[in-house]
Amino acid sequence: MRIDIHGHYTTAPPQLDAFRGRQVTDINKPRKRPMKISDDEIAESLRPNFAAMDERNIDLVLFSPRASGMGHDFGDARTSKYWTEVNNDLIARVCSMYPRRFAPVCQLPQSPLSPPEDWLPELARCVSDLGFVGCNINPDISGGLQPFTPSLADRYWYPLWEMMTELDVPGMIHASSTHNPAFHLNGSHYIAWDYGATIELCASSVFDDFPTLKLIVPHGGGGVPYQFNRHRALHVAQKDRPFEEAIRLLFFDTSLYDPDSLRMLLTKVGSRNVMFGTEMFGTAKGIDPQTGHGFDDVGWMLDQDPALTESEREAIFAANALAVFPRLKTWLEP
Amino acid sequence: MRIDIHGHYTTAPPQLDAFRGRQVTDINKPRKRPMKISDDEIAESLRPNFAAMDERNIDLVLFSPRASGMGHDFGDARTSKYWTEVNNDLIARVCSMYPRRFAPVCQLPQSPLSPPEDWLPELARCVSDLGFVGCNINPDISGGLQPFTPSLADRYWYPLWEMMTELDVPGMIHASSTHNPAFHLNGSHYIAWDYGATIELCASSVFDDFPTLKLIVPHGGGGVPYQFNRHRALHVAQKDRPFEEAIRLLFFDTSLYDPDSLRMLLTKVGSRNVMFGTEMFGTAKGIDPQTGHGFDDVGWMLDQDPALTESEREAIFAANALAVFPRLKTWLEP
Repeated sequence: MRIDIHGHYTTAPPQLDAFRGRQVTDINKPRKRPMKISDDEIAESLRPNFAAMDERNIDLVLFSPRASGMGHDFGDARTSKYWTEVNNDLIARVCSMYPRRFAPVCQLPQSPLSPPEDWLPELARCVSDLGFVGCNINPDISGGLQPFTPSLADRYWYPLWEMMTELDVPGMIHASSTHNPAFHLNGSHYIAWDYGATIELCASSVFDDFPTLKLIVPHGGGGVPYQFNRHRALHVAQKDRPFEEAIRLLFFDTSLYDPDSLRMLLTKVGSRNVMFGTEMFGTAKGIDPQTGHGFDDVGWMLDQDPALTESEREAIFAANALAVFPRLKTWLEP
Repeated sequence: MRIDIHGHYTTAPPQLDAFRGRQVTDINKPRKRPMKISDDEIAESLRPNFAAMDERNIDLVLFSPRASGMGHDFGDARTSKYWTEVNNDLIARVCSMYPRRFAPVCQLPQSPLSPPEDWLPELARCVSDLGFVGCNINPDISGGLQPFTPSLADRYWYPLWEMMTELDVPGMIHASSTHNPAFHLNGSHYIAWDYGATIELCASSVFDDFPTLKLIVPHGGGGVPYQFNRHRALHVAQKDRPFEEAIRLLFFDTSLYDPDSLRMLLTKVGSRNVMFGTEMFGTAKGIDPQTGHGFDDVGWMLDQDPALTESEREAIFAANALAVFPRLKTWLEP
């Protein structure tokens, strides 16, 4: 079985972005306008996903709203709440239309002036009422503007960690849009925040205080495995727990697109902490002229990695995901 | 011969930071207070550097002011100008005391509201009057606040590129302090900006417009080699020149501290584009308990890399630096 833990609904019908477009107009008095999308439109929008999943033997994708679209910096807490509900409801609908191919992961109604306590009702609604198996967490709520979002090491986040452990849902740390013109949104900005998040969490007491909390860093951990000894050195200097131990408190996905880098990730953090994820269709859409494979077709790279045992491979492709996302089992029950 | 292209004066006597401290008081009327440091104090401050250089067979270090200390976000253009002059003068003094062990690299009087034109007199003074061989360039002048610094791809930077090519000095892209609490200053913030800078420059027309411009990304290019195919995919999608070609328009150093990562850097960007650099003493000070070597002792990792030919090794240790920093030859002339 192959579970891709990192998919966003990047092919959603235009009615979704149209809802967002009207939020610009409604900025002073946010309201929840109706959004009409037919089942046929949803089916049509997912045709390329099904084709790629079938071709690549991907049984199930953990499916969440478009990451760059979350845009928590835009508008106020109500703007974010309505947008989040519309997105999560659409994901719920897609996943209940195709429950064997997609399992739902939600975004949160984060907003620069709204504390984590305010996001909890939507998390509870998604998980308890709609069967969502995980959530995405934006570590940069204001998109690089002030007020800055506190470090993930900060107690600011504790109400969220508390409810996540209570509900037994993991979270993927995933940035959204940025105002900073010196970064490429999904090229360098996402990676910068993957990296920053990993470093903050590794030097924190978050996992001492929440031993069962499960946080996932996408894109193979940004650039952290490549800079591994930089952080081993810092942890020695700062008298933190050894970095090589700290990093194994986190989970990582394989949306990394390069056999050498996948090997480096697996060597540095171990196969128990890595889950198959491709972020299809996202940044690495398109065919690699050097291999003829899609850039985001990661499965064959893991199939061909001679250093992986069969049981490690199975762990990466499915068993780790079933352990990290405990509610996935319930979702998949007939 | 071994030239370390990446050293900062992190052990400067406290009079330097005391000057900075008084700038806080003088914030409304910046002025250039006198700073007195004796030759003996300078000699004493460099004792650990000489010891490590001798032990590690490092002949020469390209020496610049402490990177995290540049703090271009602090105060106004005059604050930055006085601080920059004091730092550059101290570097000039250190290097003329020990011209066979240190060659000078300057910081620039960058400031959030001051355009590149305003930095040029100090660059000219350092290079033409004082013999500096290179400069450091902060891509995040305001330390993460607004006004954001334009992307390195932006024409904003062109006056600087123009003068650098005229003077034939290369520049190292190196961030300084940040206001964003979600980043670790020299752990994740520097790396984020190395990464962002590489991505912006690779997708730009900077090197079409300035074919002789030489820019160096420290810390092995942040995490870019590890995310190589992410950017190959983006360059295909954006119809930019192939990423694997674009990245060879830049130069990188080896302040990376890990044999696996050094190999990845050399494989992805080629040995012609890599220069020995350790950022001693900086982030990776301290002894690696796994190897018994200093974390920032990179030389033995390159010595022991079986994939390197002797001429590639010589290029990385010295020849590339002499080519990229043409004024180094003049500096070293008797």
